[in-house]
Amino acid sequence: MSITTRPGQPRRIVISLGGLALGDGLDRQLNRIREIAPSLLKAIDANDEVIITHGNGPQVNMVQRAFGVAAPEDLTVPVMDLPECGAMSQGYIGYHLQQALGAELHKRGGCRHVATVITQIEVEPDDPSLANPTKQIGPHLTKEQAEAQSAQHPGFRFIDDGRGFRRVVACPRPRRIVESESILNLLDNDFIVIACGGGGIPVIRDPDDKGCYVGIPAVIEKDYAAELLGDDCNADELVFLTDVDNVCTGFGGEDERPLGDVTVPEIHALLDAGEFGKDTMAPKVRAALRFCENRPARTAIIGSLDNAPQVVRGISGTRIHY
Amino acid sequence: MSITTRPGQPRRIVISLGGLALGDGLDRQLNRIREIAPSLLKAIDANDEVIITHGNGPQVNMVQRAFGVAAPEDLTVPVMDLPECGAMSQGYIGYHLQQALGAELHKRGGCRHVATVITQIEVEPDDPSLANPTKQIGPHLTKEQAEAQSAQHPGFRFIDDGRGFRRVVACPRPRRIVESESILNLLDNDFIVIACGGGGIPVIRDPDDKGCYVGIPAVIEKDYAAELLGDDCNADELVFLTDVDNVCTGFGGEDERPLGDVTVPEIHALLDAGEFGKDTMAPKVRAALRFCENRPARTAIIGSLDNAPQVVRGISGTRIHY
Repeated sequence: MSITTRPGQPRRIVISLGGLALGDGLDRQLNRIREIAPSLLKAIDANDEVIITHGNGPQVNMVQRAFGVAAPEDLTVPVMDLPECGAMSQGYIGYHLQQALGAELHKRGGCRHVATVITQIEVEPDDPSLANPTKQIGPHLTKEQAEAQSAQHPGFRFIDDGRGFRRVVACPRPRRIVESESILNLLDNDFIVIACGGGGIPVIRDPDDKGCYVGIPAVIEKDYAAELLGDDCNADELVFLTDVDNVCTGFGGEDERPLGDVTVPEIHALLDAGEFGKDTMAPKVRAALRFCENRPARTAIIGSLDNAPQVVRGISGTRIHY
Repeated sequence: MSITTRPGQPRRIVISLGGLALGDGLDRQLNRIREIAPSLLKAIDANDEVIITHGNGPQVNMVQRAFGVAAPEDLTVPVMDLPECGAMSQGYIGYHLQQALGAELHKRGGCRHVATVITQIEVEPDDPSLANPTKQIGPHLTKEQAEAQSAQHPGFRFIDDGRGFRRVVACPRPRRIVESESILNLLDNDFIVIACGGGGIPVIRDPDDKGCYVGIPAVIEKDYAAELLGDDCNADELVFLTDVDNVCTGFGGEDERPLGDVTVPEIHALLDAGEFGKDTMAPKVRAALRFCENRPARTAIIGSLDNAPQVVRGISGTRIHY
């Protein structure tokens, strides 16, 4: 058992929820969030300081599709770009989380509150990914549809992945949480804080006016945003709640083996050996490693949302530590 | 001059921005918000405690239209109801305000921060308006379109206003700001807080589970929400920034007369005499009156967003006080 418990001292925990884990659609999302709220609160102690972050893949996709489909049909509907769609998804998911967690907190009779922080995350204007966007978003289009969109939006880039044309955007490394003061302030005052939804709204400093941020059409890997959040908030634990029970070696193969308690050097070697899915588990493991490496006595855990209480208490999932 | 200035003591001000004043569309909104940000910050002193609230009429309409037009065309897009559309608009407008005000604050070299609070507002389940919805929202439809929507959404109600069929929703009185602790906490720590966007997301207590709130398809009059916000936060001033310079008697007529400094009984009498536009100025005047009546030594001001510094300093607009 490696959980960093300091008796009498509050643990500070960042919990990252997968966007898929939240369910998509309107009722499905609210029902799913209501379903997981008791389990999430069961996972944390009364004096734990908790920040919840979440993915927004299905949700931001849905908002983009709605505006993308409606704009050509209805002149009053503009095309919405990624930063605004991300802000909408933060508001929408935050509202559901506030409502569901608030109801559970009320049942428990305490006086804790939940607040959502609309969060921008600064990235570097010279991040190499900005010049070479590869993250596929949105639906597959025909060549003609892609050409029409390119004509209308000169900044849009598309690739043909064999199944059709998809828009690609940059996936820059998150550097600074613009709203970290808001998050820390609420955290210090016993709020459960929802922040950095969907990896945050990516912004760069305006080249003409360094004090001003401008949104860019990019997607920040939410696992890296969660790690930055953990670092900025000086968290003790970073917990990824996903749809699998453990990080596995040989995933999906005959010799698949779930990892339980594992040290930083051990899992580093497995990552370097290419054991983990490039777009699924590898980013989580990489984020977990960085989190543990940046300060001693930290633990990162990757486990199943359905077992949240056991995962956060360290009796389920993969626990990474020195 | 009637402004409540208490030398050495911070003034607590609620500033309410009209949704129309923010501009609609994506670029227009961001440009407009960037345009008004310097003026808004010029209006307030360094030690003023400031909460900004805003309308969302054009924005929530736009989100609803996007989902309404896209849902029948694309099976992956659900129909979004008002609470979720409202939450999206709070996230989207809050993001633009945070970004633009943050840039201005940075220029001024201080260390204040801006935070958006996604806000639910509780209404009474027996509010008479819930049984008798009259607030028109969304586009005019043909009889056939309205019938098709009613068939799909049994809760939807429509009226024929002569120009076609429009959906009507309830406009209940706001009773309690669910997130008031979040707002007060940030305010006490020198944040400029953006809250209760669009009058807040209307919720009632779940009849089966009193600790749980559920969103309802209704619209809270944003002026009344601003007044509740002022009351809950114990504000000294409530400032409505709109597209007119003053409250006027005989508005639009030959004997139109702008009101400058006016007492509560004076403007109460004018309101009772039906001097103010039912859906435009009357709600603002009513909210201003309630605000002044609820605690002594308060001032409410109604003036033009374009003159924000002069309005907040009491040298432009209509100033209501005892």
